[in-house]
Amino acid sequence: MRYKILLEYIGTNTVGWQKQRSGSSIQQTVEQAIQCFTHEEVVIYGSGRTDAGVHALGQIAHFDLKDKWSAYTVTNALNYHLKNHAITILDTRIVSEDFHARFSAKSRLYKYCIVNRPGKLTLQEHRAWHVPRALDIQAMRKGAEYLYGKHDFSSFRAYDCQATSPIKTLSTIEIKQYDDKIEIYYEAPSFLHKQVRIITGTLKAIGLHNISPETVKVILAQRNRDAAKETAPPYGLYLVKIKY
Amino acid sequence: MRYKILLEYIGTNTVGWQKQRSGSSIQQTVEQAIQCFTHEEVVIYGSGRTDAGVHALGQIAHFDLKDKWSAYTVTNALNYHLKNHAITILDTRIVSEDFHARFSAKSRLYKYCIVNRPGKLTLQEHRAWHVPRALDIQAMRKGAEYLYGKHDFSSFRAYDCQATSPIKTLSTIEIKQYDDKIEIYYEAPSFLHKQVRIITGTLKAIGLHNISPETVKVILAQRNRDAAKETAPPYGLYLVKIKY
Repeated sequence: MRYKILLEYIGTNTVGWQKQRSGSSIQQTVEQAIQCFTHEEVVIYGSGRTDAGVHALGQIAHFDLKDKWSAYTVTNALNYHLKNHAITILDTRIVSEDFHARFSAKSRLYKYCIVNRPGKLTLQEHRAWHVPRALDIQAMRKGAEYLYGKHDFSSFRAYDCQATSPIKTLSTIEIKQYDDKIEIYYEAPSFLHKQVRIITGTLKAIGLHNISPETVKVILAQRNRDAAKETAPPYGLYLVKIKY
Repeated sequence: MRYKILLEYIGTNTVGWQKQRSGSSIQQTVEQAIQCFTHEEVVIYGSGRTDAGVHALGQIAHFDLKDKWSAYTVTNALNYHLKNHAITILDTRIVSEDFHARFSAKSRLYKYCIVNRPGKLTLQEHRAWHVPRALDIQAMRKGAEYLYGKHDFSSFRAYDCQATSPIKTLSTIEIKQYDDKIEIYYEAPSFLHKQVRIITGTLKAIGLHNISPETVKVILAQRNRDAAKETAPPYGLYLVKIKY
């Protein structure tokens, strides 16, 4: 039986989704919860990795079990075993064996949260990027337009990115503002490693008038990580939704 | 010189706004920050108390200093001295001596946040009330209608409430829903002690179909705290804005 789970988690104090030699990963914590509940050895497959510190509102993973359980039982049993972790199973579905959390995904939606005000964060600490100086949202939107659609995103990938091709297609890049909160939504069939955070750091440089919106064209053309600006910190990033 | 400050804070792990014999209060922490900065003994006056665990997005307070400082300096110096606390000064204004944070206030706006889903909270822990069973929002809205406007709210005040009159006027009582998040907005010139939380607990009972929306009329008529339902927990409540 193949089970598909929808997860919410806080990335703070974890090494991220993927199992590492040391540290607490979301993947391993959930695998342990499944093993505590089913006594079966299990490997879970996520829709993709999230880095240390990155949060998820709607991560998707799948795993196979020999035994048959109701979706309701899986959700409740896993949440019981996850009660001491900042991870919650929001939903479980029994799916056919051709479903794969990573390879069946049609698109991924991320949100990056910035709080733009002089005063330090309280309620949003570890939940958003604090940018004290005023950002020019219109300039950021203008810069973002150059990134919409299909491009060679070599300048916006981490040095250690292992993707075979740097060509990606951003189907959404939208900047919303509510008082001092800025949310940037990114959607694509798939992303390069740290692509969202490097784009966000570059849009922030535009918002501060450190570079012009038009510079984005130059950065894209250089196809070199050094051309783009800083990588935004992980704690402002949320994996929102995976579409299948 | 009279200074008016706008504050954001997390109420968790505090005894609330007001100084107590023991425990960390917002009032005392801010007074100490002012004293560290100005070396003047000072008392600050808030627009009203918030209970232990209740958060503020826009609390207002005022205080007097012998020395004259720019608003900009006050904000930055206080935030420096508050750096180890979950309290931030968002704005400072120099105001005339007839301004009083509490007595000049024309209305107070509160927000109560509920997350309505089976799975426990992660990102919203200590920031919202977790209600696992599905709430009937339409029934809650119907019940809320009976509370709109001017009423004797004796049934919706804490036993220890010290207000001289139980007659209050709710100018806003509005329930908004975003996916599994429910936000209830309450605005009034002033509130009774725990009025918002007792109303919220009663609306929750309506949402769970434990009582009918029409029961609100009966509860109001009884003018007795025992007639209303449970007091919602403090950590879902936010003081949003004070209007002058």
